[in-house]
Amino acid sequence: MLLAVDCIIFGYDGIELKLLLIQRSFEPEKGRWSLMGGFVQPDETAGDAAFRVLKQLTGLEDVYMEQLNAFTNPHRDPMERTASVAYFSLIDINKYEKQISNEYHPEWFPIKKIPSLIFDHEAMVKMAKEKLRYKAAHHPVLFELLAEKFTLPQLHNLYEMIYETIIDKRNFSRKILSSGLLIKQKQKQKGASRRGAFYYKIDKRTYQHKFDAFLNIVPNPDNLNGTIYQ
Amino acid sequence: MLLAVDCIIFGYDGIELKLLLIQRSFEPEKGRWSLMGGFVQPDETAGDAAFRVLKQLTGLEDVYMEQLNAFTNPHRDPMERTASVAYFSLIDINKYEKQISNEYHPEWFPIKKIPSLIFDHEAMVKMAKEKLRYKAAHHPVLFELLAEKFTLPQLHNLYEMIYETIIDKRNFSRKILSSGLLIKQKQKQKGASRRGAFYYKIDKRTYQHKFDAFLNIVPNPDNLNGTIYQ
Repeated sequence: MLLAVDCIIFGYDGIELKLLLIQRSFEPEKGRWSLMGGFVQPDETAGDAAFRVLKQLTGLEDVYMEQLNAFTNPHRDPMERTASVAYFSLIDINKYEKQISNEYHPEWFPIKKIPSLIFDHEAMVKMAKEKLRYKAAHHPVLFELLAEKFTLPQLHNLYEMIYETIIDKRNFSRKILSSGLLIKQKQKQKGASRRGAFYYKIDKRTYQHKFDAFLNIVPNPDNLNGTIYQ
Repeated sequence: MLLAVDCIIFGYDGIELKLLLIQRSFEPEKGRWSLMGGFVQPDETAGDAAFRVLKQLTGLEDVYMEQLNAFTNPHRDPMERTASVAYFSLIDINKYEKQISNEYHPEWFPIKKIPSLIFDHEAMVKMAKEKLRYKAAHHPVLFELLAEKFTLPQLHNLYEMIYETIIDKRNFSRKILSSGLLIKQKQKQKGASRRGAFYYKIDKRTYQHKFDAFLNIVPNPDNLNGTIYQ
């Protein structure tokens, strides 16, 4: 039995939700698209391996990754039995653009135009998308995908892409603004529309508080989130 | 590298929150307390192995288990490198009491009196407790630990044990009753107190709806939960 890791990196560039992939450089399945993966070395945990592999193949480092699931189907790798621990991450593409190296030709694919992937990587991506939807409904995680300053059209667009559905713009703006989560900036984004769109920042403290307070039977849920959020 | 599974089974008997453990019957660490664990066989997924091991060691079957985390520290098992995928489950002890076999002497320990455990099993239990707290703050999972009919003191007691804190009884009752989540039964529990306590049932539809509606920017979150809740 071998132990491997695979990294599912979601990114947003302000326009599209994307997934980072590389072309596999060795057999089996050489030349096909793949998540960033590799084998866990004797002195490593799976988490260590995930960070090493991600850095080696893409140049990315200091990104937050969390364990998604262990994939253990006995036939998932046709060469030799290999269990894979999948990790996932959400990043603001523009922030990491310069860090990404071209040595292994990693490429960002729009989430709706993902090519066919090797092994069970499509199942991994599917589960990661479900977890992203779930987390985004419960936590301010979407703001990890956004630049520090973002516009309402960008936020609306991100929600639409994650939930793969049309969300009424007027309703969305009304709800999100009435939540008290956003701090309006004086600056406008130029170019995207004739009038321009105001930038906003997230008030993380308010969001956390709002989020934690929704089931107020539970005492001190801050402590709990702190732990799980790691 | 070997691949193993470990099962973390939380149970509630109406009085105490408990954890199911067995005494290890082989070296290393023979005789010490352990989660129910074993190796993944060539034709099995880790999930298959978890259900097989749990049934073999405790008699338990048809319980809902979900993957918690893969534990992959290279030195977690001193004999040979072994990664372990941990699964966890919440059960109503009374419902499964008859099913549990005595062949391997599984024993329920109150969550506050857990003995020292082998390997990294204490870290597994710690993570499972955190996940239980987290899930209980977001989902009606605690009702998987309760009998179909339960009293307010039992529910209050369960919350106190899970969050390891004192929760004001009057406040708790007021909040939980005003939530519209509970359906009062005509029957009273006899014996636990002089006046007796009314039984309640959970209105799962209301709970689900309430839960899903809290962030109403997200469309059709029912679909999302369906998936994640698996």
